[in-house]
Amino acid sequence: MGNQTADTDTPIYINKDRLENHLRTLATFGMNKGGGIDRSLGSKADREAREWLGQLWQEAFQTQVKIDPIANMWAGIEGEEPLPPIVLGSHHDAVKNGGRFDGALGVLMATEVIQRLKEQNHRMRHPLKIVSFSAEEPNPFNVSTLGSRTITGKLKKEDLQDVVHSETNVKLKDTIKQLGGDLEELAAAVLKPGDFRAFIECHIEQGRNLFDSGTPVGIVTKITGIYREKIRITGEANHAGTTQMKFRHDALLAASELNVAFENLILETNKKTVAGTIGYLKVFPNSANIVPGEVELIAEIRTPDSEILQQMIPLFEQSIVRIEKKRGVQMSRKVILNQESIEMDSRIQKALKEAMIFMEEPFLELPSMAGHDAVHMAGIAHTGMLFVPSIDGKSHCPEENTSMEDIVKAGNVLLKTVLILDKELDRI
Amino acid sequence: MGNQTADTDTPIYINKDRLENHLRTLATFGMNKGGGIDRSLGSKADREAREWLGQLWQEAFQTQVKIDPIANMWAGIEGEEPLPPIVLGSHHDAVKNGGRFDGALGVLMATEVIQRLKEQNHRMRHPLKIVSFSAEEPNPFNVSTLGSRTITGKLKKEDLQDVVHSETNVKLKDTIKQLGGDLEELAAAVLKPGDFRAFIECHIEQGRNLFDSGTPVGIVTKITGIYREKIRITGEANHAGTTQMKFRHDALLAASELNVAFENLILETNKKTVAGTIGYLKVFPNSANIVPGEVELIAEIRTPDSEILQQMIPLFEQSIVRIEKKRGVQMSRKVILNQESIEMDSRIQKALKEAMIFMEEPFLELPSMAGHDAVHMAGIAHTGMLFVPSIDGKSHCPEENTSMEDIVKAGNVLLKTVLILDKELDRI
Repeated sequence: MGNQTADTDTPIYINKDRLENHLRTLATFGMNKGGGIDRSLGSKADREAREWLGQLWQEAFQTQVKIDPIANMWAGIEGEEPLPPIVLGSHHDAVKNGGRFDGALGVLMATEVIQRLKEQNHRMRHPLKIVSFSAEEPNPFNVSTLGSRTITGKLKKEDLQDVVHSETNVKLKDTIKQLGGDLEELAAAVLKPGDFRAFIECHIEQGRNLFDSGTPVGIVTKITGIYREKIRITGEANHAGTTQMKFRHDALLAASELNVAFENLILETNKKTVAGTIGYLKVFPNSANIVPGEVELIAEIRTPDSEILQQMIPLFEQSIVRIEKKRGVQMSRKVILNQESIEMDSRIQKALKEAMIFMEEPFLELPSMAGHDAVHMAGIAHTGMLFVPSIDGKSHCPEENTSMEDIVKAGNVLLKTVLILDKELDRI
Repeated sequence: MGNQTADTDTPIYINKDRLENHLRTLATFGMNKGGGIDRSLGSKADREAREWLGQLWQEAFQTQVKIDPIANMWAGIEGEEPLPPIVLGSHHDAVKNGGRFDGALGVLMATEVIQRLKEQNHRMRHPLKIVSFSAEEPNPFNVSTLGSRTITGKLKKEDLQDVVHSETNVKLKDTIKQLGGDLEELAAAVLKPGDFRAFIECHIEQGRNLFDSGTPVGIVTKITGIYREKIRITGEANHAGTTQMKFRHDALLAASELNVAFENLILETNKKTVAGTIGYLKVFPNSANIVPGEVELIAEIRTPDSEILQQMIPLFEQSIVRIEKKRGVQMSRKVILNQESIEMDSRIQKALKEAMIFMEEPFLELPSMAGHDAVHMAGIAHTGMLFVPSIDGKSHCPEENTSMEDIVKAGNVLLKTVLILDKELDRI
């Protein structure tokens, strides 16, 4: 036990140069001419990244890498007591023309933390595992957080059986098999509460809070809820010359008015942590000389505060009814996502805070306005997240960036947090 | 000359049943299961319609059918004096899932008028020709009023050389050749002012003016000008959760606000004959979880009064500048069409009026808010149009309809107009 007491007092620091090199190498898989990263599930870049990552883990941890039935990658080091593992990790895939840090940073920082503990011969009570989840990002199979949702039992074989790549028509299950997974094996591998003791994910903030306040590390308190409605507006397609304005039922004008009203609803809450977006909209028949007859759109509301969402929905409804009446159109609505906000585990938040104080780092407590694999891991383990600043708040683009200085601070905090949790959790 | 005096006094009436049969037969070419007509340039339906129409003309007029270099179809009967022909006609193509009357009626009414004069052995001073133009409607080659624009010299071989079908990639010039035309022969065949004396087109109104007022026939005074701008709105694509509302530059919200402002501008003119439409709009990247970074749209203004257009453009500009500033977006504008309004020839309007009075038909004088082949023929001949009512104002859809009663009235008016013009034009 003397070891652990020593660890808490004598800081172990991560290896900055090694982590920087790893970040640089992983970014080469799928980097396009504009400096963006194209690394969607099953792509050549994904396969190359997996091969490289697997070798890295094998050498660093002196262990076999395991691929689970949904092709999440796992490895780690043993603990001295028969306890459920502490897990670190994130995802290594990227949105189209995405950045070098989203997901990749969480995987490589976890790698560095575990590698550092391994080479220091630090003895853990808990096994310490790493995971890189499959297809966290929106992707051509149209299933995001695929790996974490599936391995925690939220997506089943039947849900994935017929999913195909929207461009190549290749079946998801065949891609998963090619990557070493197997949907047939899924049922037996689904994680249950208690299989892991804790899950901690480091991620870029993707917003401006840390960057604008000059804070190197953020402790995530909650992960936002996400609510999405698909709305189909049916007006009347008609000749753009011969149909007088007063006889029109222009579905795009109805959608335009709805978008402006929707923005006002969001602005009226006057909260940083309420976001509303109509990001997807399609017009039919979409011809310059035809009054739009139909519009399909998706309206999204995000807030970590589900009460606010409950207050907003009837107001949104009022706008819809008003515009339907005014324009003589019909709006049919379908809730396509209603993901509740998730509290981060208080023990993990407390350990992160202790680590910050120990490292003398200023920190901010803030909700995550983006969804993460941690949402799904929260159902089976004590789960927490720490954020690093996104320069200018940019993410999902080639300009996505975080200073190495902040990354090192977060890495040291994560390492320290692991030590604290390893010591504190599962004490009788 | 005795003949003509007699003609002016003794009415000749068209054959209702024959015209009705012809309308029914032409509608079989390309009729889909929903009763709409699919008959775009070069389609099987177009080829079948052309073959049937050619045979009909050959038998009815006892003459050869001529296909010009852009595959417009021509036929007719001789006149007794060496005068430029009077031409009647329209087009036989249809928009996707279009109606049975748009274009087809003008071609078959012209057929009936000439056939009736031929079988009555009526002697004309002027040759009387019929034309069915190629591809008047918006079509997969993305060139509308193709036949009339090309044969009047507004589109040249070079303009059409590389045009391809947007779905099949077949070259327009190959389709034209298959239909009996030949772009290589175009230059020599282009019509010059004076080649024809007059052009008269009968068409469905496509609006509600005649239908709502219960008027069987309309005399077109002007054909609307059409002004189109393609506008590209550049904002900033960003994460729909992590980007606070106040930091957004949402291109779709800018477009939505522009659409509402644009509609207000049009409504403020308080004129039936000013129409404004954003019928085409595309969002990039068009994903539910990304703040729209770019929008491309086409804004169209139609009015027969070019002064009104001139007054509106600076007001539209003001809206654009206001929204650019408010939202921190850029709107780049390109005028892609600026077709001036076209006055119909006063002699043709006068002859139509005389014919209405002779036939004791009430009529309305009104501008056409749709473009027509007559726009382009107006550059080379005295040009006029008459309209029949569109039931419920519907066109370009399976429900497009006109009562046979109104069609017969218009047919008799057209026949009488031809007789009046044949008598009056080219008198010294």
